[in-house]
Amino acid sequence: MKQEFSTLSEYKNFLNNLPSFNKEAKKRAIDYNSKLTKPQGSLGILEDLALFFAGWQGIEIPKLEKIQIAIFAGNHGIIEQDVSAFPSEVTSQMVTNFKNGGAAINQLSLLFGAELNVYAMDLDRPTKNFTVEPALTEEECLKAIMTGWNSVDSDSHLFLAGEMGIGNTTSAAAIAAALCGGDGISWVGRGTGISNEALDRKIDVVNKGLKRHVTLGASPLQILQRLGGREIAAIVGAITAARYHRIPFLLDGFICGAAALVLEKTLSGSLDHVISGHVSAEYAHKKMLDELRKKPLISLNLRLGEGSGAAVAIGIIKSAIACHSGMASFNSAGVSNKD
Amino acid sequence: MKQEFSTLSEYKNFLNNLPSFNKEAKKRAIDYNSKLTKPQGSLGILEDLALFFAGWQGIEIPKLEKIQIAIFAGNHGIIEQDVSAFPSEVTSQMVTNFKNGGAAINQLSLLFGAELNVYAMDLDRPTKNFTVEPALTEEECLKAIMTGWNSVDSDSHLFLAGEMGIGNTTSAAAIAAALCGGDGISWVGRGTGISNEALDRKIDVVNKGLKRHVTLGASPLQILQRLGGREIAAIVGAITAARYHRIPFLLDGFICGAAALVLEKTLSGSLDHVISGHVSAEYAHKKMLDELRKKPLISLNLRLGEGSGAAVAIGIIKSAIACHSGMASFNSAGVSNKD
Repeated sequence: MKQEFSTLSEYKNFLNNLPSFNKEAKKRAIDYNSKLTKPQGSLGILEDLALFFAGWQGIEIPKLEKIQIAIFAGNHGIIEQDVSAFPSEVTSQMVTNFKNGGAAINQLSLLFGAELNVYAMDLDRPTKNFTVEPALTEEECLKAIMTGWNSVDSDSHLFLAGEMGIGNTTSAAAIAAALCGGDGISWVGRGTGISNEALDRKIDVVNKGLKRHVTLGASPLQILQRLGGREIAAIVGAITAARYHRIPFLLDGFICGAAALVLEKTLSGSLDHVISGHVSAEYAHKKMLDELRKKPLISLNLRLGEGSGAAVAIGIIKSAIACHSGMASFNSAGVSNKD
Repeated sequence: MKQEFSTLSEYKNFLNNLPSFNKEAKKRAIDYNSKLTKPQGSLGILEDLALFFAGWQGIEIPKLEKIQIAIFAGNHGIIEQDVSAFPSEVTSQMVTNFKNGGAAINQLSLLFGAELNVYAMDLDRPTKNFTVEPALTEEECLKAIMTGWNSVDSDSHLFLAGEMGIGNTTSAAAIAAALCGGDGISWVGRGTGISNEALDRKIDVVNKGLKRHVTLGASPLQILQRLGGREIAAIVGAITAARYHRIPFLLDGFICGAAALVLEKTLSGSLDHVISGHVSAEYAHKKMLDELRKKPLISLNLRLGEGSGAAVAIGIIKSAIACHSGMASFNSAGVSNKD
C-alpha cells in the first residue's frame, strides 16, 4: 500500500494506527530460547535483542537476512552563518564518495552484508536559513518525509538510516532544544570539529532559531519543518515506514536522534520498534538518548554520522540472531541443565 | 621456534624478552589514517584499534583475515564443595557441543569467519580441591600453559581464547583475590547463576584457598598453579604466545581476566598486546578490568564464557580494520578537507 499525506497534521494522525509488538510471538521465543545450551539469561542483551526481533517480526526465530542502510543527504541554509568546519560542497562530494564506495559506511555495509542506498535530496536547494525564515515549507517537509518512507522495503529485517549534511548538527540541536527544553548551550556540540569561536556562533544561531520558531502550540512536526533539514525529515519518514512494516529500526547518532525525538514527542510509543545503535561523542547525544529512553548498544566515541555508529552495532544484532537461531538445545545436545 | 619451559620460573624469565609495539608503524598508520574521508578522529575507538593493530603487525594497513578462537576446557576438584549450579559432567558435554557446532561460540565463530579449536584438557583428571592441596603440580601447570602456547598459529591476525570448566569462576575469584588483595567477598560472583546459599559456600571456599596458598613470596605463576585450572593456565600460555608472534589478543570475561592478571602481576607491560573484548555481568569483572587497566569494547550484560563476549567484539575490530583499510582519501575522492 502506497502512503500519501497532504499535510503534516494528516501524517500525525496516521501515527495513531501503527502496528504494535507481538507479545505472543515474544513468549514463544522466550520458551524457545530457554532450551538453548547456556545458563538462562547468560547472553544478556543479545537475548533481549533476539526477543525484540521475534516480537516485531511475529515469529519465534527471527530473520536477519535483508539489512537496509539508507543515507539521506541534504544541504542547509544555516551554513551561511559559518557554523561548520567544512564547506557545504562537501555534502555532494561525499554523496559521490558514497556512490563510489569510498566512505566509512561503504566499508561497514560491505562487512555486514547490508544493502546501501544513497538519497541526494535537492542538494542544489538548501533549506532556508532558520534564523530568518522556516527551513522548509510544509510541502517540502512532506516530500522529504516521503523520500524516507519510500526508501524502506517491506521485506527488510532491519533498517538503519544514515545522514550527510554540512550544518545538520546545528539543525538537530535546534530541534532538540525546541522539543526538550533548554537552549543552544544545552544542546550544541562541536559536530565535525569546530573551533570555540564557531561553537559560540552555533549556539547563537540555535538561540535565534528557537526565538523565531518555537511558538505556542507548534507541533513537533512543525518544529521539524521550521528548524530541520530534508535528511532529518526523511529519517522521520523512514522510522515510521519501518514501524508500518514491523521492521526494527536501528538509530545512529545525534541527527537521527533529533528525527526520532520528533516522533517521540508527537506520540509516545512511536519508537517502540527503535533500538539505539550507539551513543556518540557529540556533546548532547547522551542527553538526547535519555529523552528518547533508549540505551545504546555501543559507546565507542564515534562522531562521523553516515549511519556509521549504527552500522558497527549491526555486528551485535547479527550476534544476537545467530545465537538465538543457531544454538542447540540441552536436549538435542545431550547437555545436563541446571538441576 | 618451538618453546619449552621446564619450570615456572623459567617461564617468568622468558617474559622479559617479548617483542614490543612498533611505534614507527603506528606513526605511518596515523599519517595514512589522517587522509581518509572523515573528520579527524571521528571514528573514535575504531581508529585507536586500527592503529593498535598497525603497531603490533608492524604495517600501516593491518590485516584481519585469520582470526583464531581457542576454547580450553578443564575440570575442577573444587566442584566437590558444591560451588556451581551445574554438575561437572557439563564440561565434557559442552566440549561435545562445541565439536558439533551447537554452542553460542560456534554461531559467533561462523558469523565472523573465525577458526575455532577446542582443547579438552585432561577432563578425566580434575584439578585437586584447592582448599586441601595445590590445584596443579608445577609440571601439570606448565603442560597446560604449553597447550595454550601451541594453540597459537604464528600467522594469525587476532587471537581470542574461550574457556569451559564447571567451577572455574571459583578458581578465577581465588586467583584475583590472591593477586589483587581482598577476599572471597570481594571477588566471588554467581557464575552460571548460583543460589545465595551456594554463594556463601563459594566465598568460604575461596577464603580457605587463600589462607592455605597465599604465602609470603609466592609468585603469580605459583598462585596460578595452586588455585588455578588447566584452562586458565592455557590462556596464560596463549596470551604470551600471541605476544611472541606480535598478534593482538582479545580478552573475554572473568576467567580470561584471571589468566591475564597472572601475567600483569608478573610483569607490567606483558599485556600491552591485549584488548578487553567486553565487561561481563559477573560480579567482580569490572574491578578486574580496572586492575588490568583495560577498557572493554562492549558491555552487554553477558556472562556465558566460551569466549562469547570477546567473539561479539570481533565485529567492532572488523569494523575498525575495514574502515581504515578500505576508505578513500580526501584526495582520491575529490572531497574538500577542513580548511
